[in-house]
Amino acid sequence: MSEQSQDLPERPKEGEEGDKGPSKSALKKAAKEKEKAEKAAKRKEVEDAQKKESEANDVSAHDYGELPMIGSEPYVPRADTAKRIQLAELVKKEDVSGQEVTFRAIVENARNQSAKLAFLVFRQGFNSIQAVVAASDVLSRQMVKFSGSIPAESVVLVHALVQKPKEPVKSTTIQHLEVHVKKLFIIAKADAQLPMQVEDAERPIPGEGGEELKEETEGRPIVTLNTRLNNRVIDLRGKHNHAIFTIKDGVSLLFTEFLRNRGFIGVNTPCLLGAPSEGGANVFEVSYFATKAFLAQSPQLYKQMLIASRFEKVMEIGPIFRAENSNTARHLTEFTGLDLEMAFEEDYHEVVTLLEELMLYIFNGLKDRYGRETELVRSIYHVEDFALPAAGAVPRLHFKEGIQMLRDDGVEIGDFDDLSTPDEKRLGALVLKKYGSDFYVLDQFPLAIRPFYTMPSASTQNAYNPSSPDTGYSNSYDFFMRGQEIMSGAQRIHSASYLEQRMREHESPVDPKSEGLRDYVNAFRYGCPPHAGGGIGLERIVMLWLGLPNVRLGSLFPRDPGRLVP
Amino acid sequence: MSEQSQDLPERPKEGEEGDKGPSKSALKKAAKEKEKAEKAAKRKEVEDAQKKESEANDVSAHDYGELPMIGSEPYVPRADTAKRIQLAELVKKEDVSGQEVTFRAIVENARNQSAKLAFLVFRQGFNSIQAVVAASDVLSRQMVKFSGSIPAESVVLVHALVQKPKEPVKSTTIQHLEVHVKKLFIIAKADAQLPMQVEDAERPIPGEGGEELKEETEGRPIVTLNTRLNNRVIDLRGKHNHAIFTIKDGVSLLFTEFLRNRGFIGVNTPCLLGAPSEGGANVFEVSYFATKAFLAQSPQLYKQMLIASRFEKVMEIGPIFRAENSNTARHLTEFTGLDLEMAFEEDYHEVVTLLEELMLYIFNGLKDRYGRETELVRSIYHVEDFALPAAGAVPRLHFKEGIQMLRDDGVEIGDFDDLSTPDEKRLGALVLKKYGSDFYVLDQFPLAIRPFYTMPSASTQNAYNPSSPDTGYSNSYDFFMRGQEIMSGAQRIHSASYLEQRMREHESPVDPKSEGLRDYVNAFRYGCPPHAGGGIGLERIVMLWLGLPNVRLGSLFPRDPGRLVP
Repeated sequence: MSEQSQDLPERPKEGEEGDKGPSKSALKKAAKEKEKAEKAAKRKEVEDAQKKESEANDVSAHDYGELPMIGSEPYVPRADTAKRIQLAELVKKEDVSGQEVTFRAIVENARNQSAKLAFLVFRQGFNSIQAVVAASDVLSRQMVKFSGSIPAESVVLVHALVQKPKEPVKSTTIQHLEVHVKKLFIIAKADAQLPMQVEDAERPIPGEGGEELKEETEGRPIVTLNTRLNNRVIDLRGKHNHAIFTIKDGVSLLFTEFLRNRGFIGVNTPCLLGAPSEGGANVFEVSYFATKAFLAQSPQLYKQMLIASRFEKVMEIGPIFRAENSNTARHLTEFTGLDLEMAFEEDYHEVVTLLEELMLYIFNGLKDRYGRETELVRSIYHVEDFALPAAGAVPRLHFKEGIQMLRDDGVEIGDFDDLSTPDEKRLGALVLKKYGSDFYVLDQFPLAIRPFYTMPSASTQNAYNPSSPDTGYSNSYDFFMRGQEIMSGAQRIHSASYLEQRMREHESPVDPKSEGLRDYVNAFRYGCPPHAGGGIGLERIVMLWLGLPNVRLGSLFPRDPGRLVP
Repeated sequence: MSEQSQDLPERPKEGEEGDKGPSKSALKKAAKEKEKAEKAAKRKEVEDAQKKESEANDVSAHDYGELPMIGSEPYVPRADTAKRIQLAELVKKEDVSGQEVTFRAIVENARNQSAKLAFLVFRQGFNSIQAVVAASDVLSRQMVKFSGSIPAESVVLVHALVQKPKEPVKSTTIQHLEVHVKKLFIIAKADAQLPMQVEDAERPIPGEGGEELKEETEGRPIVTLNTRLNNRVIDLRGKHNHAIFTIKDGVSLLFTEFLRNRGFIGVNTPCLLGAPSEGGANVFEVSYFATKAFLAQSPQLYKQMLIASRFEKVMEIGPIFRAENSNTARHLTEFTGLDLEMAFEEDYHEVVTLLEELMLYIFNGLKDRYGRETELVRSIYHVEDFALPAAGAVPRLHFKEGIQMLRDDGVEIGDFDDLSTPDEKRLGALVLKKYGSDFYVLDQFPLAIRPFYTMPSASTQNAYNPSSPDTGYSNSYDFFMRGQEIMSGAQRIHSASYLEQRMREHESPVDPKSEGLRDYVNAFRYGCPPHAGGGIGLERIVMLWLGLPNVRLGSLFPRDPGRLVP
């Protein structure tokens, strides 16, 4: 696999081909480039000569080395191109011993055992295998030395013989096989010194991984969350991170799979809004040509307008932006929202039931299809198995009942107080104890702590029911996992006049005639069926399913008030 | 279905239950609310009395009227809740005549034929059916009058008998059946005067629908694109719009379906960036707490960093933001990107081939699964069927060949000139003529007109190939539908040092050490396999598949330099 330098005649440069002749600076540049090229050519000539000389003394000269950058040379199809294998295939097949294979892999580590023997570990995805490079009549000591010196994390092309090791290999995932290298080329060389090691990323975050930490970090540098996120490309190489994001993708897949079967259609609503739509707090402002725009805090108003547009059931997966200056382990300024909205017939609990079924479908799908990934993450972040309720038996508590359970447990809390984070966690623990489920629904939240578009509880005093008492509750609900909220939803008001009234009466009043709300309110003047929905935080599901200590670990490139890179 | 008013004792208000007593203003507010409630109660009493009196003379008194707002009254499960049907079911079943059905529908129109007879058209999704309300011993003239006067677009609950009409109904999609109404309730009443009519939305945009326009708009008001977008909730109710967005969702579905089968994983990369990443032009600026952020113009750099993070094949569907002040029929400031990136073995054409297969999968999927929707849209926007190449026979032209075809057709154009929009369309027509395909690939674009991360063409002079000629091309490609670009892609540079060189050399140089690019460049120091990918504009595929005259018609709530609402 020697370099295929081509001696084609030089062609005129682009600047010389147009209508106008080249400018002075262009000529200067061209002259400089020519000089540079000539120097480089000379350097190469010397190198080539040196190479030839050393090759003459090396029986393996053509079997190892650094390949030219792929794509930088004309491609000549090779006979073995199609035959490149995946390590995963080796695991599945029986009796592969003695087979000759070609594959691309990462060097997990490499070491020279002696002048005649080098050991490497090759990785591909979740799989790793041991490689032996042994000097022989047809394999030079130079090649052994080269092999054992390849920097970790380099990408290589391997030609090797699959063999059974004398005893099972302990340090690799594939233990019953190893490969004996015949050729080894570097495709992309990694720097010798990396800012952090992949294996250091494969341990819990210091200070957030629980008691196991001390023991596990013994003798290894402690890499903080901040350092990991600063070097996220290396950090993400950790196998548990691949597992986390495979699971995250799985949640999205299960979400759409379930909803499509129920007749939902996927939609794309705008992130750029002409005016802050949900009260104006916590919204990011954007310079938009001569005017301003605002980043959507949720697709809420648009989902509803689509219901008014006769789309009966809509779902959306998209980014959610919150300009909340919260530096906690559960807040991000940008995260992925799994949103849905649907028209219902008579009662919003039709939607609550569907949402419960959706979540159970996701949980069971994760159990069935992502067991290996879940296991892998839990080997690092030790956490109790997620306690699932039986289908159709999801604990659904009236807010009142939740308050009562907290009071019975000694918490002082008002009937209509919002739950603090510790209260939520405590209630989650109480529900787990009483109902045996880490997943439950709190229904009928106090109206005063919900957004203006929330439908007040049935029999709450309103324009249609002036003689009814004011219960103070609303047709709204939160879903919880391990005592933390993952979804918020409600029946929405589908009457324009009542919506206007609620907008004015609300604790944080908004103006129904404002630019950002006018079209939204009008949508309900054109005849809109009753509807309800909810918004799920994708990263929170991932975090709570796996018991991760920080929601940032559920985002590839997390954003918080202090972090915008990488 | 009379109102179920409840005479429960009044309960204390929220403010009176906390630890502190109510404030003066709260007391005042409470007094006012009490007064208001008393007045409303009195009004209701009078109304109820009037209602009772009129009911005494109306045999159908309990069979029609406006329902209380759903959710505003305690829900009592009704025996027929589960039995509500979809009109689509009626079409599928045989011999439904004589069956009694209950369903929720939209009133497409209503008219009183006489004092004893009213006709309505009910709609549900793509289906509509004629309804007859005829006075009889058990159906009052009052009810007939009420039924014929329901404002179009109101949401109603219908109890009716399915019958065969004397002759097929012409004005509805269901022609062999009609319903004879027994009960009819308004769930959500539409305003009598809407800003525009749904049927007016179901005709092509004036000035952009071709010659058919004059004829089709005869006798009807011409509704401009602007008016339609201003009243998008009504506009979207048009059946062709439901078809368009069903197809749009179909493209996303087919995209992920194909790629999942090929081992791709769905990812979510950030929209908020710490620095403009792709040169700094056309980027929206965001106020981000005490600093600034920028909206991603594509997930380009992040997709590549994920390849460097050992995700071999990634895909993403998400919003793309372009601060381009272009008011054309094919530009949006926010659109949906279908992005993918993958590592390859030896040659970037491995990826081009996969992309071709992906597009064919999408096209064939649209043909097979969305024929009805495509038909429906094309009944309004007349356009030639999309000419598909045979699988594996997608025309793939070298950029040189494209230029030659244009020249042969009389276009004056330089070897390395970018194609103008008219050039693109002309080349599309030439390719269609020569190869019989509306879909083709232009490969090996001039290096100078592609972004800095594009891999120069093989045998182009570079650090690795100093003696090679500078061909001026690059390993990059555009995909075209009907002569318009829908996807741009390339092999990317996977060597940090070469990338730095190209960044400095580029026509629009960027600084490899800048905040927005540092982490990106570093990613390639840690060993990254060769990779290529592409980004597809979802709305453009929809527009060009259907032959829509404006890309805005492919966006639910389009955004352009002059539009941020609704």
